[in-house]
Amino acid sequence: MRDVAIIGIGETQIGELWDKSLRELGIEAGLKAIRDAGVSGEEVDMLYVGNMSAGKLINQEHVAPMIADYAGLDDIPAVRIESGGASGGMALAEGYISVASGFDDIVVVGGAEKMTDVNDEEAKKILSSTADQEWETVCGATFDSLHAMMARYHMNKYGTTKDQFAEVIVKNHSNASNNPNAQYPRAIPKNFVMNAPMVSDPLGMFDCAPLSDGGAAVVLCPAEYVDNYNGDPVKILGVGHGADHIALHDRREIGGMKATRIAAEKAFKNSNISSKDIDFAEVHDNYSISEIVAIEDLGFFKKGEGGPATEEGRTALNSEISINTSGGLKAKGQPVGAVGINQAIEAAIQLRGDAGDRQVEDARYGLTHNVGGTGASAVVHILERWSE
Amino acid sequence: MRDVAIIGIGETQIGELWDKSLRELGIEAGLKAIRDAGVSGEEVDMLYVGNMSAGKLINQEHVAPMIADYAGLDDIPAVRIESGGASGGMALAEGYISVASGFDDIVVVGGAEKMTDVNDEEAKKILSSTADQEWETVCGATFDSLHAMMARYHMNKYGTTKDQFAEVIVKNHSNASNNPNAQYPRAIPKNFVMNAPMVSDPLGMFDCAPLSDGGAAVVLCPAEYVDNYNGDPVKILGVGHGADHIALHDRREIGGMKATRIAAEKAFKNSNISSKDIDFAEVHDNYSISEIVAIEDLGFFKKGEGGPATEEGRTALNSEISINTSGGLKAKGQPVGAVGINQAIEAAIQLRGDAGDRQVEDARYGLTHNVGGTGASAVVHILERWSE
Repeated sequence: MRDVAIIGIGETQIGELWDKSLRELGIEAGLKAIRDAGVSGEEVDMLYVGNMSAGKLINQEHVAPMIADYAGLDDIPAVRIESGGASGGMALAEGYISVASGFDDIVVVGGAEKMTDVNDEEAKKILSSTADQEWETVCGATFDSLHAMMARYHMNKYGTTKDQFAEVIVKNHSNASNNPNAQYPRAIPKNFVMNAPMVSDPLGMFDCAPLSDGGAAVVLCPAEYVDNYNGDPVKILGVGHGADHIALHDRREIGGMKATRIAAEKAFKNSNISSKDIDFAEVHDNYSISEIVAIEDLGFFKKGEGGPATEEGRTALNSEISINTSGGLKAKGQPVGAVGINQAIEAAIQLRGDAGDRQVEDARYGLTHNVGGTGASAVVHILERWSE
Repeated sequence: MRDVAIIGIGETQIGELWDKSLRELGIEAGLKAIRDAGVSGEEVDMLYVGNMSAGKLINQEHVAPMIADYAGLDDIPAVRIESGGASGGMALAEGYISVASGFDDIVVVGGAEKMTDVNDEEAKKILSSTADQEWETVCGATFDSLHAMMARYHMNKYGTTKDQFAEVIVKNHSNASNNPNAQYPRAIPKNFVMNAPMVSDPLGMFDCAPLSDGGAAVVLCPAEYVDNYNGDPVKILGVGHGADHIALHDRREIGGMKATRIAAEKAFKNSNISSKDIDFAEVHDNYSISEIVAIEDLGFFKKGEGGPATEEGRTALNSEISINTSGGLKAKGQPVGAVGINQAIEAAIQLRGDAGDRQVEDARYGLTHNVGGTGASAVVHILERWSE
């Protein structure tokens, strides 16, 4: 397999973008990435698009060729990759494999979601349809309540506290305050989080990532070709997929995610590095509890130490390991199908040294972690700063 | 890139399967394929699932890990591939690339669709959502009417007749009569087709493929490993993707499909053979007109000669080129996300010499052709009989 580089990145503002359609979000991100890479449209071999639910959100299936078409790339084959919240990361993995194999040379991997054309209740139902429809959501479980169960389990088993959940949120909003593309680019005080209306006990409004519109794209090419393009590449060092039962009640335990552990193990193995080498990570914090579970399963902290570590500031910017420097899903936003690509873009910005006030000092290895459903699928990418 | 073999195949009966859910269809097909290959579940590295619209048809996104889970493969990463009607073929291409690259060794590629849990009108609307929702279907165009426009154009430009359309249907039903898994395993007389109620002029009821439930799966491995498994492998010789504008009105011409031509050209190039070498093909006959357009764009007949060639019997079983020996989407059935895999399974059955009364004599090269939407995406696979 060939080494693969990210040579271009582009993302839209994330937010409630009333005046932009899915196709416009996809096109904006894709064209920014292509321009950043300095490739021409004709050079692109394939487009992968991560998208969770355009069928239900905007009544359009077959979105990948639609986005390619409207970006002026109507000759470029395009396919959609869906794995719930992990759609973007799974699309990136497919793009990586396609370039690594030699089947394609220049691949654009995009992700986009348009969530605000339906009302919040409907959008929440659609998110919940990434859990087990037949055995969970039909019985009344929601995406929020399933994560609340994981939170309660973690509190009960490891002594994690609502205060520690709040520290995740305060940190991520603080990081987002330095990210101009974030949906909520502002720090918030801890009492906001602690006193927010309850969504599903113990998770309050600020413990939950928002519903967002947004698009993101990266351009991949074989590492040996990077000199032909604009430069400022970063290397994709390793990729790993993981899986678990789709329904929470079928899992061996719900204080951690087996899918994350499998994916991380494979990605580290493919990269020949370990969790100790990672300088920063974008992890799937769709809920505050999710970040705590993730930093444990990824091996950054022992099981049960995610909450205390967060409280002690060991995941803050330029501490022991910088977690969600972009603001994460929580504060940068959650345009579901784009999330995995947004994470890769933050990693690329950090590894290029372009992150400004949220820059991780001397960042060499970054990790991205993208989860589908309540943890039935996960994908981990490890990226490395470019060196000649 | 490594050579890739199909070492196991499995499919469900296709039809209106009231008593089977999507997960059951996926599991049945997957387990049959795994058993046929003689691999154990633990050996499987990855599952790709082609599916068009489970979100709308059964209210379940994230179907790939659900199917893996219920097939007892909950440790196996799974991802869904969607490209409208080409979802199955696109999934097969992703599986092929993954094995060819060396990223994975044993990959299961499945496809499944459960279309009869909603009423026909709703299912037709969902099919139509693979055309351009914003500029075609909102304005009243349907999947049927868009194909009717292609048919009218072809009739006007090339002199193709409704009689020739009918010959496609009669042939495919005749082929299906020898296929026990077909939804309509019976020959029908031409006057049935000619006198059927009109759906969208000039396409009558028999010109349109049905809405179907069904699942299909194949197991892939590197060609060098085939001796480790049950045997009876076939080789995937080449793969090609193609694309075009999503809306019919944006295309340069609608008497052919550019996406098919691009995909075929790439697949033939990757295979080092030409259309003249192909012994049989499963082409995307979701409408009678689609088969005529396909056999022209794939290079089997010159533009405008698809209708007359069909009428002259040159596409019948064991004629010049055997087209849709399985019965095609028209008579074998159209479980949308499974179609591309059903096609590969028919090709494997033919190349193994197991097709019984519908066997193509001395079949060496088979082609499968899977289309998304009204032709915005297409994927072509070329398969070869195994030789040591």
